[in-house]
Amino acid sequence: MEKIKIDQVLPIVRLALREDIGIGDITTDSLIPEDQEATAEIIVEEECIVAGLPVAKTVFDEIDDRIEFVAECSDGDRIGAAEVIARINGPARGILTGERLALNFLQRLSGIATLTSLFVEKVLDHSLKILDTRKTTPGLRYLEKYAVRLGGGTNHRLGLYDLFMIKDNHIFISSRNADKKRIPDLVDTARKYNPNISVEVEAETLTQVQMALDAGADIIMLDNMSPAEMKKAVDIIAGKAITEASGGITIDNIVKIAETGVDCASVGSLTAAAQNINIKMELT
Amino acid sequence: MEKIKIDQVLPIVRLALREDIGIGDITTDSLIPEDQEATAEIIVEEECIVAGLPVAKTVFDEIDDRIEFVAECSDGDRIGAAEVIARINGPARGILTGERLALNFLQRLSGIATLTSLFVEKVLDHSLKILDTRKTTPGLRYLEKYAVRLGGGTNHRLGLYDLFMIKDNHIFISSRNADKKRIPDLVDTARKYNPNISVEVEAETLTQVQMALDAGADIIMLDNMSPAEMKKAVDIIAGKAITEASGGITIDNIVKIAETGVDCASVGSLTAAAQNINIKMELT
Amino acid sequence: MEKIKIDQVLPIVRLALREDIGIGDITTDSLIPEDQEATAEIIVEEECIVAGLPVAKTVFDEIDDRIEFVAECSDGDRIGAAEVIARINGPARGILTGERLALNFLQRLSGIATLTSLFVEKVLDHSLKILDTRKTTPGLRYLEKYAVRLGGGTNHRLGLYDLFMIKDNHIFISSRNADKKRIPDLVDTARKYNPNISVEVEAETLTQVQMALDAGADIIMLDNMSPAEMKKAVDIIAGKAITEASGGITIDNIVKIAETGVDCASVGSLTAAAQNINIKMELT
Amino acid sequence: MEKIKIDQVLPIVRLALREDIGIGDITTDSLIPEDQEATAEIIVEEECIVAGLPVAKTVFDEIDDRIEFVAECSDGDRIGAAEVIARINGPARGILTGERLALNFLQRLSGIATLTSLFVEKVLDHSLKILDTRKTTPGLRYLEKYAVRLGGGTNHRLGLYDLFMIKDNHIFISSRNADKKRIPDLVDTARKYNPNISVEVEAETLTQVQMALDAGADIIMLDNMSPAEMKKAVDIIAGKAITEASGGITIDNIVKIAETGVDCASVGSLTAAAQNINIKMELT
Amino acid sequence: MEKIKIDQVLPIVRLALREDIGIGDITTDSLIPEDQEATAEIIVEEECIVAGLPVAKTVFDEIDDRIEFVAECSDGDRIGAAEVIARINGPARGILTGERLALNFLQRLSGIATLTSLFVEKVLDHSLKILDTRKTTPGLRYLEKYAVRLGGGTNHRLGLYDLFMIKDNHIFISSRNADKKRIPDLVDTARKYNPNISVEVEAETLTQVQMALDAGADIIMLDNMSPAEMKKAVDIIAGKAITEASGGITIDNIVKIAETGVDCASVGSLTAAAQNINIKMELT
Amino acid sequence: MEKIKIDQVLPIVRLALREDIGIGDITTDSLIPEDQEATAEIIVEEECIVAGLPVAKTVFDEIDDRIEFVAECSDGDRIGAAEVIARINGPARGILTGERLALNFLQRLSGIATLTSLFVEKVLDHSLKILDTRKTTPGLRYLEKYAVRLGGGTNHRLGLYDLFMIKDNHIFISSRNADKKRIPDLVDTARKYNPNISVEVEAETLTQVQMALDAGADIIMLDNMSPAEMKKAVDIIAGKAITEASGGITIDNIVKIAETGVDCASVGSLTAAAQNINIKMELT
Repeated sequence: MEKIKIDQVLPIVRLALREDIGIGDITTDSLIPEDQEATAEIIVEEECIVAGLPVAKTVFDEIDDRIEFVAECSDGDRIGAAEVIARINGPARGILTGERLALNFLQRLSGIATLTSLFVEKVLDHSLKILDTRKTTPGLRYLEKYAVRLGGGTNHRLGLYDLFMIKDNHIFISSRNADKKRIPDLVDTARKYNPNISVEVEAETLTQVQMALDAGADIIMLDNMSPAEMKKAVDIIAGKAITEASGGITIDNIVKIAETGVDCASVGSLTAAAQNINIKMELT
Repeated sequence: MEKIKIDQVLPIVRLALREDIGIGDITTDSLIPEDQEATAEIIVEEECIVAGLPVAKTVFDEIDDRIEFVAECSDGDRIGAAEVIARINGPARGILTGERLALNFLQRLSGIATLTSLFVEKVLDHSLKILDTRKTTPGLRYLEKYAVRLGGGTNHRLGLYDLFMIKDNHIFISSRNADKKRIPDLVDTARKYNPNISVEVEAETLTQVQMALDAGADIIMLDNMSPAEMKKAVDIIAGKAITEASGGITIDNIVKIAETGVDCASVGSLTAAAQNINIKMELT
Repeated sequence: MEKIKIDQVLPIVRLALREDIGIGDITTDSLIPEDQEATAEIIVEEECIVAGLPVAKTVFDEIDDRIEFVAECSDGDRIGAAEVIARINGPARGILTGERLALNFLQRLSGIATLTSLFVEKVLDHSLKILDTRKTTPGLRYLEKYAVRLGGGTNHRLGLYDLFMIKDNHIFISSRNADKKRIPDLVDTARKYNPNISVEVEAETLTQVQMALDAGADIIMLDNMSPAEMKKAVDIIAGKAITEASGGITIDNIVKIAETGVDCASVGSLTAAAQNINIKMELT
Repeated sequence: MEKIKIDQVLPIVRLALREDIGIGDITTDSLIPEDQEATAEIIVEEECIVAGLPVAKTVFDEIDDRIEFVAECSDGDRIGAAEVIARINGPARGILTGERLALNFLQRLSGIATLTSLFVEKVLDHSLKILDTRKTTPGLRYLEKYAVRLGGGTNHRLGLYDLFMIKDNHIFISSRNADKKRIPDLVDTARKYNPNISVEVEAETLTQVQMALDAGADIIMLDNMSPAEMKKAVDIIAGKAITEASGGITIDNIVKIAETGVDCASVGSLTAAAQNINIKMELT
Repeated sequence: MEKIKIDQVLPIVRLALREDIGIGDITTDSLIPEDQEATAEIIVEEECIVAGLPVAKTVFDEIDDRIEFVAECSDGDRIGAAEVIARINGPARGILTGERLALNFLQRLSGIATLTSLFVEKVLDHSLKILDTRKTTPGLRYLEKYAVRLGGGTNHRLGLYDLFMIKDNHIFISSRNADKKRIPDLVDTARKYNPNISVEVEAETLTQVQMALDAGADIIMLDNMSPAEMKKAVDIIAGKAITEASGGITIDNIVKIAETGVDCASVGSLTAAAQNINIKMELT
Repeated sequence: MEKIKIDQVLPIVRLALREDIGIGDITTDSLIPEDQEATAEIIVEEECIVAGLPVAKTVFDEIDDRIEFVAECSDGDRIGAAEVIARINGPARGILTGERLALNFLQRLSGIATLTSLFVEKVLDHSLKILDTRKTTPGLRYLEKYAVRLGGGTNHRLGLYDLFMIKDNHIFISSRNADKKRIPDLVDTARKYNPNISVEVEAETLTQVQMALDAGADIIMLDNMSPAEMKKAVDIIAGKAITEASGGITIDNIVKIAETGVDCASVGSLTAAAQNINIKMELT
């Protein structure tokens, strides 16, 4: 299974610990003796794809590296309600102090992985790839994209740095410049800037689809098109570029999208509207 | 209107910009001339309580301090669909680079403020205070608590540092120590640790309620009680401590909770299950 | 015995090492071979309450974690002149480089603990608590408050964040506002801002004492009152609020203060005028 | 007049603000409106050499750069009791929040400058230079050495990096090595390590004085010698090296030390035992 | 003309200032009055392509933002010997303190731009692009790649993150795994990891060239081939992938390389063996 | 052999890793399994003085501390072509990711050590010391000065902080001040600022030499003098100050310089014009 890179996770874990602990967990520090040991279980309360175990482990590591966190399953596993997904033992103080933050991560990431898996299962009979977007929680991009992969989804670009994505706004602004650059000029300019990175062009009409195709775009985004129009676009493109459906895609219309033959569909709600999974910690 | 403390916001804004921009917004940097100016509007697509305008402004300030961000309303205002909430002008590059992150903040925070206002409106005829919890997004605690206030809610403790909250886990661990500390001992110990900070005790039964009351708790949490049981607890406490309903509180049962006479209700879903508000940026 | 939280200590230890070592301890680096080992003792030269051993240990740990620092007593112990309080062994370079800073911490903190104990012993027959203030050395707040506790004193608020302290300046400014807020308004406003944190009001006259009492202050500071006036204030308050003597309190008048029946006395000189204890390091 | 380098001061000012303010000055933030203005004076309550005005200014600058801090005198000036040394105006919140820390710096630094001036005045008729030591407050080295200069004193080395100071411990350890290095070898080794920096040797006996002299030391420290012995040492050295008296030097014996003809005297108590000057802030 | 992104430059400028200034420019601070003004010129002593003016400006800005640095030409201009390329005026201290570091940057970067231009001019009649490599000075990658562009060169990948470069070592290790992955597997795996980024394969023989071509590599590196062999490789590839000559390329053989018809040549010596240009600062 | 201080090296190593790896070594991360082990050798391709082994080790330590780096020789050793200087084993990913940066350091530092040794060998029969200058690579000062020592050279001042170096610019500016300070005044002022640090004066003429000598300079720099003039200067100085030749010194004229009897010669090209040594890594 894919491993999380812990150094990508540390900044947000540390920021979150700082905001929660501030000048100290006064309840725990005052009531629980420093040498008190405890054991606990993390239990899933509803069926889900588990995501975030290494992050939860990192939370406890950062608080007190004497805390032992043993995962009982792996990130990406589908787990039924009431199952124990991790066991924790070590200094009681740190276990209590870290509980809430560890659960906050697990609940959110498992929610994203689980929601993604619902989309993926719907289109198992099609070749459609389910993509995420940049509508992620500030500070959690890396983790939320990872949860999407665990749910069977595919990552769209990670950030503004790993794909040329020529959107309506770029086209609009360029059209008003003195030099009135249009789609083919924009694709050319991007290629020259870094020839090693693909170029995606957003198209809202079949005319724009044709223009993007002629300009040699690697990927053409079919933005907010009806399934019928999308089908026509796919036919026009005819495999000469990758096609991506975008805008208003839900669990209810994903199959119709798939039936158009489009290659991928980017779904903002994977990260922007996933509901947390109920997960709790219990002392044993 | 309450002001956001920008220095509380900068760490998460900077972390989020770093994860999104990485080595550069290659599309914008390659296609848009450095001296190109642009103007844009931020438009709300559904009725909501707006929250996060100063954060959005900070996003653009951090990218390029020549960008002017003029809010057309204030955080906390109720705004109808299709209204412009801010106008932006300045270097086009920075406006395009910051769009997504600014919207991610506005959408999430406005969602929280709006959901909170729904709860608050439901119980306008009662004296019940709607409280948030620590189930916030890692890194966004300060902002999400602020959004709750904008929605008319009241903040529970900000973190582990500003209230003694003696929960079942603290009681459980202490009961197993050699010195078998019970609720009254725990309340005393906390008071001695810092006499200036209130002590809340979690009670799951009427027996525990009585014990917490006798121990002199300032606040007693009535955890997962039925409205009937909660009513009894409120009668027992009889104003000698503040009462807080907790566990399983939804928009559907909040009125029944209010009718028990409890002082406050803490609602995890304010921050853990709020749906993003649709907000978009348009170049003009 | 209470443990120091090392992460509270590291910033000032590192700052102090940086200012002392700069680009290197040129004498030691040039004269002492890298593999040279040494042993040393830290010896107290006058009777005192020892404070700061874990800080001294941290100084050496930060310089070279191969240095072993073994305390021969505990922080808070009363130690007679000429006794060894710690033994050190390991790389000679690090021992020599760290000597001065380790002693600087030990001398100052032991001075504070010892001075505090003098005050505490004077009033052993009374219930008066000896409090510190915010007149601490910049950067050493946490450590100096810790030394006060070791000497038998009690900490007043740690900083501006853990107690509402409505002082003459707050009252003065508020009285001049358009809305002319007076003491009861101020107490109410503070309670609403965070109901979980106590409110102290500074009173310079018996009229102010009555006003603070009526406003429901948790603590009333009797500022710069004569013992006779203070006695009257204590009688007026009659246990309905905690009373704190403040201003001009010395080792000579502390007993008279205690005899007024006031609950606590805050003594700025504990941290602002303690004399260093003579402590030295000797190679063995 | 000499200027403080602000970047040398910022780390300790920021550390001290952080430890004092923590999560916020709750009293001021809750009670004082954000747009409230105030004016204040900083007043000296006893005659002293003022030191630290730019640091106090920096404290307020860091809190809110709209606060105007106007010094009414200069660091190093001798000021009589009850005189105003600075006027402050601007946002009331920041003025109240910064008061204590600004005063903490001023009181300590003015105390050091004033104590130094007492030593300097005692020996005005001699050529003796009054030196400080490394017995400074952790984190305040730069500022305390600056205060010594304001009081008319001369700085000994700033840290471990700007003078070779071969102390008894270096000599002791080296004598036990396989290669049994003695004082001349040590002086030679130091010279080779960096020929551009002076070499001081600590001597406790006249024999060591002779050895240090023969070794070509630039400065010879006469450690804990009686005035009579010190006189002999000065005669032996006869101007071929700079001489420094050290150990047990007080305001009572400084004249006798001066009369031995020694060039300088290093006085640990300048920084380690100076009493704070009473300085207060008053709103106007 | 292309602009340097200053935030890419600040870390190395600050590191370099710290290592040079340490605890202070003692000569300048002691000898030159704080309010002394000066003017100076930066003069090129031999013909070159100028590179680094904005870096030099940043050096002075960081030291004292009152220093005015006015470039008399632009980065990328070809300048003859003895010409003034910038004029500086402002506080004399900062100008003297920054001189050496500003020149160190200008000399090195101008050296790289100038050497690059020599290669570019040699092959003006061919379509060969001159590429740099990752053999840059640690910490100066961004600046040295920028200097290559100023000299007319083209940047190869910026780092390990913006191109899949399957080198002999990757092929060697993969061939020894249990699953014995070969070139086509590697290309496929890379494509799946991030389909938006090009894949380059290193080929040392014509067999490997064919394999890379069949695997669908976007770029094929012809490593250490003779011109004759390279010509054959170019013929085999026949425009179906970009071709890159690599290994042992010098100013003497660059024309022969160009004549093979290869698309680009990567030249490590552009950054690894460029000689500094003589540039000096003179006070006026 | 002298040890590198790793904490002096970490900032540049980390900066360089960050600029090279950015968001990840995508080739290695995608193609090489996480648990794959590898072994490699670092081999010198031409005779040289090796320098930088501990830096190369630090590069791999920073990437993955499970990588074992075993040096087969020591920094400063003269090694023949084709010899293995280090063996590496551990996780294959980290070995591949670190290869280029480790080699970049080794090649540059070995180049400097080797070039220095050429100068040193030329003047073995003379007492001339070969000094470096401040013409080092930004960020690499510490390492390049270390490489000079390995090659048998002697370090001139490390930075602006450890020697008073009164250059023509200081003299020029001072001569134009109202108080027209001349060389003797400048030497005096410097001495007073810090009497423990030597004073060097730059002299371009014999008149200036005499003035510097009369002013009591510790070191006199003979700037850009012909061997004949330099000889006269050495005679005038007659051992009363250290003499340093500077300006235009090359491997071709170093012997003539030595023959003038001057004490040291500072050679900018040691660090500014050294050619990288060819060093490679091979998997085994």
